[in-house]
Amino acid sequence: MSYQQLQHKYQEIGDLEHALSVLGWDEAVMMSSGGGTTRANSLATLSAHVHRIKSDPDNAALLEAASGDNSLNEWQRANLEQMQRDWIIAQAVPEDLVVALSKASSTCEQNWRALRAQNNWKAIEPLLREVLKLTKEQADCLSEARGVSAYDALIDLYQPGLGQASIDPVFDDLASFLPEFVDTVIEKQRLPLPMPEKISAEKQKNLAVTLMQKIGFAFERGRLDTSHHPFCGGVPDDTRITTRYNEDNFLDSLMAVLHETGHALYEQGLPARWRGQPVGAALGMAIHESQSLLMEMQVCRGKEFIKFAAPYIREELADRNADSLAFSADNLHAHSILVRRGLIRVDADELTYPLHVILRYELEKDLLSGTLEVSDLPEAWDAKMRQYLGISTLGNDADGCMQDVHWYAGLVGYFPTYSLGAITAAQIFATAVKDNVDILPGISQGDFKPLLTWLRQNVHEKGRLLSADQLLNDVTGASLSTRDFKQHLTNRYW
Amino acid sequence: MSYQQLQHKYQEIGDLEHALSVLGWDEAVMMSSGGGTTRANSLATLSAHVHRIKSDPDNAALLEAASGDNSLNEWQRANLEQMQRDWIIAQAVPEDLVVALSKASSTCEQNWRALRAQNNWKAIEPLLREVLKLTKEQADCLSEARGVSAYDALIDLYQPGLGQASIDPVFDDLASFLPEFVDTVIEKQRLPLPMPEKISAEKQKNLAVTLMQKIGFAFERGRLDTSHHPFCGGVPDDTRITTRYNEDNFLDSLMAVLHETGHALYEQGLPARWRGQPVGAALGMAIHESQSLLMEMQVCRGKEFIKFAAPYIREELADRNADSLAFSADNLHAHSILVRRGLIRVDADELTYPLHVILRYELEKDLLSGTLEVSDLPEAWDAKMRQYLGISTLGNDADGCMQDVHWYAGLVGYFPTYSLGAITAAQIFATAVKDNVDILPGISQGDFKPLLTWLRQNVHEKGRLLSADQLLNDVTGASLSTRDFKQHLTNRYW
Repeated sequence: MSYQQLQHKYQEIGDLEHALSVLGWDEAVMMSSGGGTTRANSLATLSAHVHRIKSDPDNAALLEAASGDNSLNEWQRANLEQMQRDWIIAQAVPEDLVVALSKASSTCEQNWRALRAQNNWKAIEPLLREVLKLTKEQADCLSEARGVSAYDALIDLYQPGLGQASIDPVFDDLASFLPEFVDTVIEKQRLPLPMPEKISAEKQKNLAVTLMQKIGFAFERGRLDTSHHPFCGGVPDDTRITTRYNEDNFLDSLMAVLHETGHALYEQGLPARWRGQPVGAALGMAIHESQSLLMEMQVCRGKEFIKFAAPYIREELADRNADSLAFSADNLHAHSILVRRGLIRVDADELTYPLHVILRYELEKDLLSGTLEVSDLPEAWDAKMRQYLGISTLGNDADGCMQDVHWYAGLVGYFPTYSLGAITAAQIFATAVKDNVDILPGISQGDFKPLLTWLRQNVHEKGRLLSADQLLNDVTGASLSTRDFKQHLTNRYW
Repeated sequence: MSYQQLQHKYQEIGDLEHALSVLGWDEAVMMSSGGGTTRANSLATLSAHVHRIKSDPDNAALLEAASGDNSLNEWQRANLEQMQRDWIIAQAVPEDLVVALSKASSTCEQNWRALRAQNNWKAIEPLLREVLKLTKEQADCLSEARGVSAYDALIDLYQPGLGQASIDPVFDDLASFLPEFVDTVIEKQRLPLPMPEKISAEKQKNLAVTLMQKIGFAFERGRLDTSHHPFCGGVPDDTRITTRYNEDNFLDSLMAVLHETGHALYEQGLPARWRGQPVGAALGMAIHESQSLLMEMQVCRGKEFIKFAAPYIREELADRNADSLAFSADNLHAHSILVRRGLIRVDADELTYPLHVILRYELEKDLLSGTLEVSDLPEAWDAKMRQYLGISTLGNDADGCMQDVHWYAGLVGYFPTYSLGAITAAQIFATAVKDNVDILPGISQGDFKPLLTWLRQNVHEKGRLLSADQLLNDVTGASLSTRDFKQHLTNRYW
């Protein structure tokens, strides 16, 4: 009965988190600016209610009793483990801090949108300082409760079980491998024919919807909208992805949609009978990112997908008389794997992307420990950009330390999951195409069923039944390693 | 301190109601069908949390202590009265019933959308029966706690202070006055030139936005979207109106927008320093409807407004060579006051509209008392339609008893507020144009400031400081009467 009581409480938490998720999507996609203050208050109150249920003192006895319940099956046991983890985390952080952090993050994020557009670092700096101060307090609480470093405690919020000890060797490996690799690829790659410009958002959206449907996105359980930055939000039964349409570079927008489609397929594929329960949730942000990058990088930027998609792209976008060479499968593929050093992480190719992440990883560690003052962030950012990518962001904070919403939204410890996701994607996809030889031919013919079935069975439907490391070992026979990722890069770019 | 504690609790309630309101808007405008079940659960849990705070046993002592607090100003005292009312209502209804009613209503409403389109009464009937059963339970609880009839207890939820005793004489008056009046008007009215067909939704939306801005809708604190039925949702700082665009009758869609704009101006004009507190809310649905109908019926279907709007309508919609006569101010005005008996309440003109409402008023009283069985509703509807409007809905339940969402969404006791609103609108507007002689000339020149300023000061900014009856007496010098409404109809149609 204790377990059932806990499960009932989590149904309530799931209902409140549904509200948080949809209101978060609404804030980014629909909300008018005047609604910002009351929205921030509403989100903070909802977070407080979630926190109150999770940190209810009665939970201690319930968890204790449930852990001795021998009737639980493996899913219930895994669910209980997630509840225990939640309890430790919730109990460690006082409700006042939860509310303060929620409000400060909402306010800072809302202001960031306009201030980034104005390249106004001075105005956002105090708001960011407040968010980081509260994040540090949160990290200290969690660090003490969980017996790990403050930074590890934050990373673990986004990918349970992940920490510096497993990230450092991976990032060291990439940091030593990539810069020279990038140099060589940029030097030797052939430049494709330019793409036609001024392709309307409407046409791009039609194309995006067609390809999303082909891949398996269930529109009766989701939407596609427009927002400033592409993201995947909503809930598993109503998964909402967004993109922005660049009329002068449709491939950018399309790949953003396909990336978010990978996220969405994961959400839509989570185990339906565990909706609202922690074991029914995605396994963490690194695994989430592995699903989006598997779709974008492994599948959609690959030759097989482009071969399948090229006729649809031509059909929807091409001026029939003029654009045949630019829209050839070869040229589209060349565009989709073009490597260019740039300022913006979200526009980066898969070779330079990890360098953007490593930069943020190093800076946020220093911000959290206090080695780096918030006021010195623009200079520190510029220095790292020169070091890793040879470009300066001096005087251009909009495209420097103000380019990403994460820190302004209180997300510290999140960035590493992007590159861990890329590596995991390569490892999982390498296994998938060996496991089922129909996957690659299927993609080139527009039949995504073999791939999606494999992902559903091996990843999506597992929810949080296993840890990320267990899952990876179960599926690929090994813990996380850069081997397949480097092999993939070598195959594609060398 | 007791009062401050209560106010703090209401801030939390306001935050949760913000979530309920935005999620309700999202359900009607954005949600994909798959999201229905989890959304129903989320709304029910949020309602339960609101109910839990409102019915907290500690409130009794706090309310008692606060009522003896002589330091409270008139706004705080009015706020406290609202809290006392809330407490009696919340305490009367058990949380289980709140949750069950919320879930049953969400489920029934979600299914109603598709089933109405299929004219499938048999499938919706059991869902409606469940909603009505729970609504009856709720009404019985409230009836006992408040010492009024079950039906009055429900009406009071939508317009505090309203009940059958004040509705019956008004509706009797209209039921005896209108049928003959309608006959005569239909006989003698001249038929206008037909309007051009196939006017795109995009053009209609541009026109709607232009006129909304002229009238004073603040787009930085609101939105205009598309939904199956027009409504006004969201929150005062982010007020969201919707419409549907009928390509063959743009005036219908435009008038729906202008109606909702009236609702929205009320919301946007509520007293900002009382956000989230009960005294800061709208005064009830009859007063709300008075603001939408004042805008639609008194202002926008009047000659002055049409004179101002005609050039904008021509500019946006007219084919410059063809449509000049159809788009003349005279012809547009004739269309806007055309009287026709029809099946659909939301499409009805202001003369036949009250007859639709009286029909529903009589039927819902009988449904609630049990005199009318749910299974007999289609026949009873048909009989009343023949009686009041001379039209049959036999075999056409989609346009009969399935046409309105209200009962399917658990709203019983709501319909009377529409016609009370129409009467109130006439009474308020008659006073306004006498009070400030610049209002009417302003409208004909597109200057809505005199009108909006007057409404802000006399109605919007009052929130719930006064009762509806007090407000009406303060503003117009009299309680509710049909006099100005009948005068208005006579002036316009006779």
